Amino acid sequence: MKRVYLDYAATTPVDPRVAKRMLPFILEKFGNTMSLHSFGQEAKTVLEESRDKVASLINAKPNEIIFTSSATESNNTALKGCALSLPKGKDAKHIIISSIEHPCVVESAKWLKKQGFEITKLAVDKYGMVNPEDVKKVIKPETILVSVIHASNEIGTIQKIAEIGKICRERNVYFHTDASQSFGKIPIDVKSMNIDLLTASSHKIYGPKGAGLLYIREGTKLIPLLHGGGQEKGLRGSTVNVPAIVGFAKAAELCKKDMTKEAKRLNKLGNKLVKGLLKIQGSHINGSPKSYLPNIINARFDFVEGESLVMQLDFKGIACSTGSACSSTSLEPSHVLLATGLKPQEAHGSLRISLGRFTKQSDIDYLLKVLPDIVKNLRKISPFKNSYKF
Amino acid sequence: MKRVYLDYAATTPVDPRVAKRMLPFILEKFGNTMSLHSFGQEAKTVLEESRDKVASLINAKPNEIIFTSSATESNNTALKGCALSLPKGKDAKHIIISSIEHPCVVESAKWLKKQGFEITKLAVDKYGMVNPEDVKKVIKPETILVSVIHASNEIGTIQKIAEIGKICRERNVYFHTDASQSFGKIPIDVKSMNIDLLTASSHKIYGPKGAGLLYIREGTKLIPLLHGGGQEKGLRGSTVNVPAIVGFAKAAELCKKDMTKEAKRLNKLGNKLVKGLLKIQGSHINGSPKSYLPNIINARFDFVEGESLVMQLDFKGIACSTGSACSSTSLEPSHVLLATGLKPQEAHGSLRISLGRFTKQSDIDYLLKVLPDIVKNLRKISPFKNSYKF
Repeated sequence: MKRVYLDYAATTPVDPRVAKRMLPFILEKFGNTMSLHSFGQEAKTVLEESRDKVASLINAKPNEIIFTSSATESNNTALKGCALSLPKGKDAKHIIISSIEHPCVVESAKWLKKQGFEITKLAVDKYGMVNPEDVKKVIKPETILVSVIHASNEIGTIQKIAEIGKICRERNVYFHTDASQSFGKIPIDVKSMNIDLLTASSHKIYGPKGAGLLYIREGTKLIPLLHGGGQEKGLRGSTVNVPAIVGFAKAAELCKKDMTKEAKRLNKLGNKLVKGLLKIQGSHINGSPKSYLPNIINARFDFVEGESLVMQLDFKGIACSTGSACSSTSLEPSHVLLATGLKPQEAHGSLRISLGRFTKQSDIDYLLKVLPDIVKNLRKISPFKNSYKF
Repeated sequence: MKRVYLDYAATTPVDPRVAKRMLPFILEKFGNTMSLHSFGQEAKTVLEESRDKVASLINAKPNEIIFTSSATESNNTALKGCALSLPKGKDAKHIIISSIEHPCVVESAKWLKKQGFEITKLAVDKYGMVNPEDVKKVIKPETILVSVIHASNEIGTIQKIAEIGKICRERNVYFHTDASQSFGKIPIDVKSMNIDLLTASSHKIYGPKGAGLLYIREGTKLIPLLHGGGQEKGLRGSTVNVPAIVGFAKAAELCKKDMTKEAKRLNKLGNKLVKGLLKIQGSHINGSPKSYLPNIINARFDFVEGESLVMQLDFKGIACSTGSACSSTSLEPSHVLLATGLKPQEAHGSLRISLGRFTKQSDIDYLLKVLPDIVKNLRKISPFKNSYKF
């Protein structure tokens, strides 16, 4: 059966050029970066070369980058590391996050709440946009950190990060952004955007799983999440995963090289897809029509369950998602879609289609060929069928 | 130049059979285990198969294993996850660790101390052995956790884990052991050894970097270190690193198959090495002559600095270490060797030689051929040369 992968926002295959670059570091150049001997030193050298490469993608200095095992680890480190670095008993215990963060940011914040921190969630409009003016309103003297996702993993909406960064900088509040979906896909400049902490992931950009990064602006105070043997300037203990990091850097390099061209190509494919989806009666596009990632399209179909759509598409060899892969096994409606004002039933009916480097026009054509019938058939068995009028 | 790697305790090359097994999961079967579609489900299936394999090596149930990114992460999770799972304000805030733990356990404990926990360090004898009777003495009603490393990463000493486990179980105190160096090399049975939490690492057993595990006995309470999207039963958020885990499981399988034979082979090589080392005047073996890992030999040479030895051996193509790779860039003498009663100067003079799967007799012969002259030459320039009598 033809297999079409349209779930690039969940994870991507490793680009063969990335895998090729990694292989020698798996098999032969396997040294521990902390070792004094030549095996260790060659690992250390390539680690620093990799740091240069990823730093250059966001206009950071290499010494402002620490490598982690994942974006989840980076996000946990940013929030908890920042919050727990405070001297005990200090009043400054207020953290602001948006209401459409990834579960790892939401859950980290929840845990910090249990530890005595106050958490404020920023509302978003119907397109999933945070209004920077709202940030101004909720920042108070006790605020230590604002965390707003750069581009939504569910609906692709891109936030006004530079504006929010400016507000935070002016008020001397740390600003963190989870750029897991945007890093390598759209331009990011941590300096001009006034970002203090930024999370990125390897496996979303055709690099291997097991590598992430946290940009930490010089002078930003935080404690490690993983205490250990002094790796990554003491900010992340653990034997450095050189093969994964080398792969991550190669992946970042490839993204940098073709960023504009690839965004344009995906945008074109995405537009065709949206056009096709909207031809299906009772279909709607979730997210922003103006500020969005080129590769994430989130649609909903009246009276159809997203899970059923995913399963039926899977029978046809097409891989899509209802939302974040991390929440896909949960029966709760997406908190991101609810935050945009959708009703639970509408949120349940949503489908995320995410394109990537290996997506071709024929993949979109195939999806658009099989989807209308699937929607039609699912509506036939819908418990709401009596109320639908198509 | 001939290159001889004798630093297997720092990290190991990936076994080519492991790399071969990983490759399809890097390139083609790359799904996210949380995805509902077939790409996700094939990833989920192989994840559970991998869990079965590693569990079988320590007589655990598969549902008692969570995968992490490293032993450091597992150790951090065990200590902090256990300590911070307590309701706030509870009195039970006493943790016991041995004085020869890996830096990641030491540093996690230090951080917990800052959070209000009391930490007791168990002394060791001159061979690096914890006396189980001492554990009995220091456990008190407030004790929640005892953490003792199974086999020392520096001197190879194997602790009386089963005895310590029994004492902890009888007193209803959680018992954690860091088995990073022993897992896959000597038999471990978490049930008969009364272990509640056990850490193991992939890259110490010819698996890839980026995978570790934490055995968590059913019913053991702990909170996640990485909050996220519900992976690993909610105990470890983050996209599951399937390729690394598949490699880890394959590596564990290979170790299981040949454990006895390989231990015997390494023991034989190690004995020859010890014999040869002791022929050098003013040389001593650190660690236990009775209870030790077959592959770690720690020696010291009067009036010679370990760092200098490592550098000189490196010039000859031989990779060894002064101690833990994680501490090798520190100028402090090894806390493990100091705990065994060595003076700082003696600790500084120590060399860790660790053998592994690809170590041959000729490697040992080569080391023993070049080492005596290196020691001799270093002694000539030793600041202590006036006091030495060789």
